[in-house]
Amino acid sequence: MLTKKTRYTVIGAGHGGKAMAADLAARGFPVTLYNRTAEHIQEIFVRQEIDVEYENGISRCCRLALVTSDIGEALDGADVVMVVVPAWAHREIAHACAPHLRDGQIVVLNPGRTGGALEFQQILRRESCAADAIVAEAGTFIFAARSTGPAQARILRRKNAVPLAALPATRTGHVLEALCEAYPQFIPVPNVLHTSLDNMGAIFHPALTLLNAGWIESTKGEFQFYIDGVTPSIAHVLEVLDRERVTIAAALGVRTRPALQWLKDAYSAEGETLYEAMQANPGYQGIKAPRSLRHRYILEDVPFSLVPIASLGAQFGVDTWAIDSMVRLACVAHGTNYFQRGRTVEHMGLAGLRVSEVVRYVQEGQIDPLSIFATARLDGR
Amino acid sequence: MLTKKTRYTVIGAGHGGKAMAADLAARGFPVTLYNRTAEHIQEIFVRQEIDVEYENGISRCCRLALVTSDIGEALDGADVVMVVVPAWAHREIAHACAPHLRDGQIVVLNPGRTGGALEFQQILRRESCAADAIVAEAGTFIFAARSTGPAQARILRRKNAVPLAALPATRTGHVLEALCEAYPQFIPVPNVLHTSLDNMGAIFHPALTLLNAGWIESTKGEFQFYIDGVTPSIAHVLEVLDRERVTIAAALGVRTRPALQWLKDAYSAEGETLYEAMQANPGYQGIKAPRSLRHRYILEDVPFSLVPIASLGAQFGVDTWAIDSMVRLACVAHGTNYFQRGRTVEHMGLAGLRVSEVVRYVQEGQIDPLSIFATARLDGR
Repeated sequence: MLTKKTRYTVIGAGHGGKAMAADLAARGFPVTLYNRTAEHIQEIFVRQEIDVEYENGISRCCRLALVTSDIGEALDGADVVMVVVPAWAHREIAHACAPHLRDGQIVVLNPGRTGGALEFQQILRRESCAADAIVAEAGTFIFAARSTGPAQARILRRKNAVPLAALPATRTGHVLEALCEAYPQFIPVPNVLHTSLDNMGAIFHPALTLLNAGWIESTKGEFQFYIDGVTPSIAHVLEVLDRERVTIAAALGVRTRPALQWLKDAYSAEGETLYEAMQANPGYQGIKAPRSLRHRYILEDVPFSLVPIASLGAQFGVDTWAIDSMVRLACVAHGTNYFQRGRTVEHMGLAGLRVSEVVRYVQEGQIDPLSIFATARLDGR
Repeated sequence: MLTKKTRYTVIGAGHGGKAMAADLAARGFPVTLYNRTAEHIQEIFVRQEIDVEYENGISRCCRLALVTSDIGEALDGADVVMVVVPAWAHREIAHACAPHLRDGQIVVLNPGRTGGALEFQQILRRESCAADAIVAEAGTFIFAARSTGPAQARILRRKNAVPLAALPATRTGHVLEALCEAYPQFIPVPNVLHTSLDNMGAIFHPALTLLNAGWIESTKGEFQFYIDGVTPSIAHVLEVLDRERVTIAAALGVRTRPALQWLKDAYSAEGETLYEAMQANPGYQGIKAPRSLRHRYILEDVPFSLVPIASLGAQFGVDTWAIDSMVRLACVAHGTNYFQRGRTVEHMGLAGLRVSEVVRYVQEGQIDPLSIFATARLDGR
């Protein structure tokens, strides 16, 4: 087991990345912070410190071991690489990391959205990354955090349990062991299909944003997103979207909770219908809507949550009529082809695989040699 | 030419039907009012009168010649049959009228939405209606009117020009002649493809309702529909939808105005973009949103405006990606398959026809005999 000396590299200095880097440093871990654009971390680079304010109001000044925009330098010597970037940056990060990864290094996507670890791994293969690095993904980000200045971050809330799986699942235990000294909140789920398909943001974020588009743009989000913005008709749309997600998961042998059950488990929010449960959820009180439509609820959750779910549905024979309609609407609203830009089974390295092959791959990392020839994709290993 | 003695039958005693029946009676025409459900016209039946309040505040009590829920009785002796019902009732009215229509009777759909006259005519054919009746459609309803009581109606506004076409177009002049004593506002357009495709409600109503769904349901429509509810992103969606409509019209040889031009013509609303023009339109000031999603802006405009436009697009090779996404979203929100319930080229009697055949049909009423065999639909004539 790795000791307290576990060396962390945090990739990304946004809301989450700064908070995590500071928090890890505050707990005594040596932390490297990487950001692609040097200007964004200029002040942190000069100070080598981040000020973090905790949930309880206490502030700390946290010293980092290294601040860099050189990915080779950032990965050099890291035990665990915490990737804390929006899903649209996963590809680029994977390409950037591929030449620098070393045997035994652990890469954790915080979170992967749908298929993040699968796509990351697939890029490492394609880039002929020879290192025996381990890619894992979290189901959600461990904090609710905000950037409050160039070298400042605030942690608003810390989640009690964050699902995590490695690819393949046989290595999940090893990853959790490496992480547990810093974050015992990470809990294992059977494999990355679980972290990927237990994606409630996919269901809630784009639909609520699009079906409240006028309200959001007219008021700059001045209403309660999950209360005012969730009406009986909208909750019905969410239920239909969620049913498609649950059905696709079932087709892949993954038993994922419907949104209604998830609300009960995560928030003790009770109700006969999704509408009732969302209205009854005190955790949703006071959460404002996004200020505009150019928000990660569309920009991230459409191409990297809904599109991969729809793509899995298409491959495994589950109709995703409602999800498709939501993606299309986002495409029309933003004048962008999210189906094309998003994450598909091809990106995830699952194109052409049967369910049993997908399961073997996520569980054991094994691909049937015939499938390799059939798809001509998973070369280099 | 028909004299002041033109006998009118108004079909439908809703907001528009009561207003039109009263208005025609007030102008000295003998008027029969028909409504399918006798209870809805019970008070009018007892009184044989409707109280109408005009735009200028003056009220009149208007005596009707006949009030009935017997369609045979309603049509007997009518010169002009004004159908003033939501488009979802056109089919049923056509079936009900078919056995009772007589040579020379004129049926006007007020309005037809997209393909109303085509579908009405097609039902008359299928029902082997032998009468040489003329079916026509208006592009919009001639009044803005409200029902203000069981035997009361209020006319809020009267439109200056209402496009009208008969099927076939060779008979448009005859219809206008019959109507002009009562309503000189009706103006001819080349054929029913024009009245059907110059359908701005198709573009504005479903999209604005769906993209403001949360706001509508949360506030019961307490915001300005065409001002607050039209934001830059939403206006962009409208532009994309409108481009599909205009392209389909062009594929059928119909030059229809883009929404931006229509706003300039109809309201003198100026702007570089649809967003600017809608915000600048004083005619939109004060118009509230619908109070719920179960409103004709979805229930009527999705199946009888967007679906027929999409169906024409599919037949004539115009992609209707945005329109389809809007219809799908309505289907998901209402749990209803509007593609199936709506009006398609089959209902309009256009399935399998080439553009030249469609044009000949709407212009002259002629169908290529080979097409008749090919589609095996247009029998009975």
